[in-house]
Amino acid sequence: MKIVDMRVHSIAMADPPLRSSYGLHAPYALRNVLELESEDGIVGIAETYGGEKPAAALLAARGQVVGADAYRLTGDLLGLVEGEGDGLDRSQTHHVPGENPLDASSRTYAALETACLDLIGRSVGQPVCDLLGGRVRDEVPFSAYPFYKHAGGGGEGDDKREDKYGEALTPEALVRQVRQMFDEYGFGSVKFKGGVLDPEIEIETIRQLRREFGPDVPLRIDPNSAWTVETSIKVGQALKEELSNGGYLEDPAMGIDGMAAVRNGLLAAGIDTPLASNVAVTSFAHIPESVRKDAVQVILCDHHYWGGMRQVQHLAKICQVFGMGLSMHSNSHLGVSLMAMAHVAAATKHLTYACDTHYPWQSEKDEIVAGGRVPIVNGCVRIPDKPGLGVDLDYDQIARGKELFEKVPYRKRDDEAEMRKHVDATWKRVLPRW
Amino acid sequence: MKIVDMRVHSIAMADPPLRSSYGLHAPYALRNVLELESEDGIVGIAETYGGEKPAAALLAARGQVVGADAYRLTGDLLGLVEGEGDGLDRSQTHHVPGENPLDASSRTYAALETACLDLIGRSVGQPVCDLLGGRVRDEVPFSAYPFYKHAGGGGEGDDKREDKYGEALTPEALVRQVRQMFDEYGFGSVKFKGGVLDPEIEIETIRQLRREFGPDVPLRIDPNSAWTVETSIKVGQALKEELSNGGYLEDPAMGIDGMAAVRNGLLAAGIDTPLASNVAVTSFAHIPESVRKDAVQVILCDHHYWGGMRQVQHLAKICQVFGMGLSMHSNSHLGVSLMAMAHVAAATKHLTYACDTHYPWQSEKDEIVAGGRVPIVNGCVRIPDKPGLGVDLDYDQIARGKELFEKVPYRKRDDEAEMRKHVDATWKRVLPRW
Repeated sequence: MKIVDMRVHSIAMADPPLRSSYGLHAPYALRNVLELESEDGIVGIAETYGGEKPAAALLAARGQVVGADAYRLTGDLLGLVEGEGDGLDRSQTHHVPGENPLDASSRTYAALETACLDLIGRSVGQPVCDLLGGRVRDEVPFSAYPFYKHAGGGGEGDDKREDKYGEALTPEALVRQVRQMFDEYGFGSVKFKGGVLDPEIEIETIRQLRREFGPDVPLRIDPNSAWTVETSIKVGQALKEELSNGGYLEDPAMGIDGMAAVRNGLLAAGIDTPLASNVAVTSFAHIPESVRKDAVQVILCDHHYWGGMRQVQHLAKICQVFGMGLSMHSNSHLGVSLMAMAHVAAATKHLTYACDTHYPWQSEKDEIVAGGRVPIVNGCVRIPDKPGLGVDLDYDQIARGKELFEKVPYRKRDDEAEMRKHVDATWKRVLPRW
Repeated sequence: MKIVDMRVHSIAMADPPLRSSYGLHAPYALRNVLELESEDGIVGIAETYGGEKPAAALLAARGQVVGADAYRLTGDLLGLVEGEGDGLDRSQTHHVPGENPLDASSRTYAALETACLDLIGRSVGQPVCDLLGGRVRDEVPFSAYPFYKHAGGGGEGDDKREDKYGEALTPEALVRQVRQMFDEYGFGSVKFKGGVLDPEIEIETIRQLRREFGPDVPLRIDPNSAWTVETSIKVGQALKEELSNGGYLEDPAMGIDGMAAVRNGLLAAGIDTPLASNVAVTSFAHIPESVRKDAVQVILCDHHYWGGMRQVQHLAKICQVFGMGLSMHSNSHLGVSLMAMAHVAAATKHLTYACDTHYPWQSEKDEIVAGGRVPIVNGCVRIPDKPGLGVDLDYDQIARGKELFEKVPYRKRDDEAEMRKHVDATWKRVLPRW
């Protein structure tokens, strides 16, 4: 099935002022939407990281894409993710997701693979998950993903969005935020973005979450490397009970050695809370060292930057074989990415945690999926009985997103700059901070 | 695409009296051929291990297969290869391939997956390799696979086959055998089945192969665990030069600890000839220990017993990530298996050696592929420009194979019994022998 055209739409969407150790989310997040059109007029789509560089990388591949067969393009381009030797090394530590130059090629490949799979699925009338070996689940569980945040719903001026969740800079406000998400989406677990306030306040936040939601709701905390090894161990000890029962401590300290030191410290204290990572371990090249040092017991996959859906399936097998869990990372995204995440999760047996998603932070006003936002019911996205990813683009909304993109003055994500602009003119990302 | 029927054909084919540390090949080898028929009358095929047990296992799955969707069956049954925890452990050491009860479920799954992929490929007009992420090569290199053998071409009575290669129980005869295979098939590398004669004779055989074929033809030797650690190290030292340049030493000693001891001994002697395995390491459960002990530097995949084509792709990624090579194991087979092996190899980038194949040992009289034997040219099988596996069944030949199967008095492979019957009435498999 020959690909005859390729289009990349660079769009912006309102994003609330969420905080993390990287800094502050800007009023608009950027995404790129890829379309691959076949000779018989079928269009496969994918959503990926935003801004200029990801778009340019996709367009740079145009010569290899247009004219290629959709079934074979992913084989032709496999060198982008499975190069020999050092081709595996796409380390990152200090970059926000999507801005690490070392995994640029795997991001490009992932978007092309997703669009090819959507195209193939549409042409043969099959959901993407069933092109990947066949689904192992119909419903994919996601987690509530609360953030400390400033007031504001994202966007600026006429494009300001409703602030559904309000400011949340205290434990109590964060618990209210999660309650709101649970009520709206039916989530059954919590992934909480820490690394923002003093660790004592974050410990208290987790404790209040435990009190509010009871012992059966798994709780995870992710300070994105904001803590020293000592602080990480202290928090792990303090939250020994709260993070058990399906929870984990994600990237408390920096790097594989930092994580291994935290692990050793916790084990010495009789605490086996798993450590998860999408900062210390972000590429296949990290895995042997991480395994050797037992640095990480859960890896967060993300087809957007691990090199696509099939690479995530490989990663899942590695995790199963080496006794690690697999969770799924999220970045600010719209419905096309959500569906792609759901399909890869549906086709990945060894996915041992509910997936992360930023979806509740986005507004229906920015949704590019025809018919509006993808439903999350009982915390799950259900694989629809439709071919491909199961969602179509709303081209009016794409046009709207492109207009917004033109208005936005930045072309890449820079949470540190946003922090300086809106919160503290002298703010710098300091790791570890506590 | 609903599966409405499933058929299993148990066939026999003539097999020459090949020797290995397991004993002697019987005059007939057994295979099972699986057909899955869809509601629109398309038939997907697979070839797998022979005899009663594999056929019974496939038929036992009939209730889950008939009525299932070909795109989803492999997801529904994934528990057969990716169970939780101990589901990964399918260890084997003393069983001939296909007769290990612990990997029965992964063999069953593999045959069903292959037939589903063939069915899907036929229905959408795509080769199987392009359903698996897309081919990374069009031509799949195979190796000459010489064996010490007695006189005879396989079969008995009226079904005796021509003895193309003659007796080969000396280095000189084995070199002639390889020359014949090189001339007929254009192979460019040699996988030599040892573990049969005194190691000094096998060393001499490899040396003569090196002299005959020059320095650029990779040479591999596989005594199937017949040697002690000391003998293995001695052979590795003696063949230091001969097994370099793309060669390896396969399963010289028994088990992961035996292989690790050989590795350590060779490294201590300054020899880094890679050790390969399809005896010490035969399931995903073996890999962590093998990696930890650096027991094996090359794993031999085989979709027939590693749980299918996608599991082989996972295995390839594991090998790439952990710095191991990947080769491909073979068992006596016909053209359907050869094509399946070629497709999985075509879709597996990190396949770092030419594949094993027993195909030259089989006769056109037993071939079940319509149009006759699959061509091997310049040592390669070319992926044909046809959907699915690219080969159809010759039903007259299937009927012939079933008749042969009825005549054959045994229902499973037992090389030890054959050895006692034809060569030495007191023979037993002794490991290690030397």
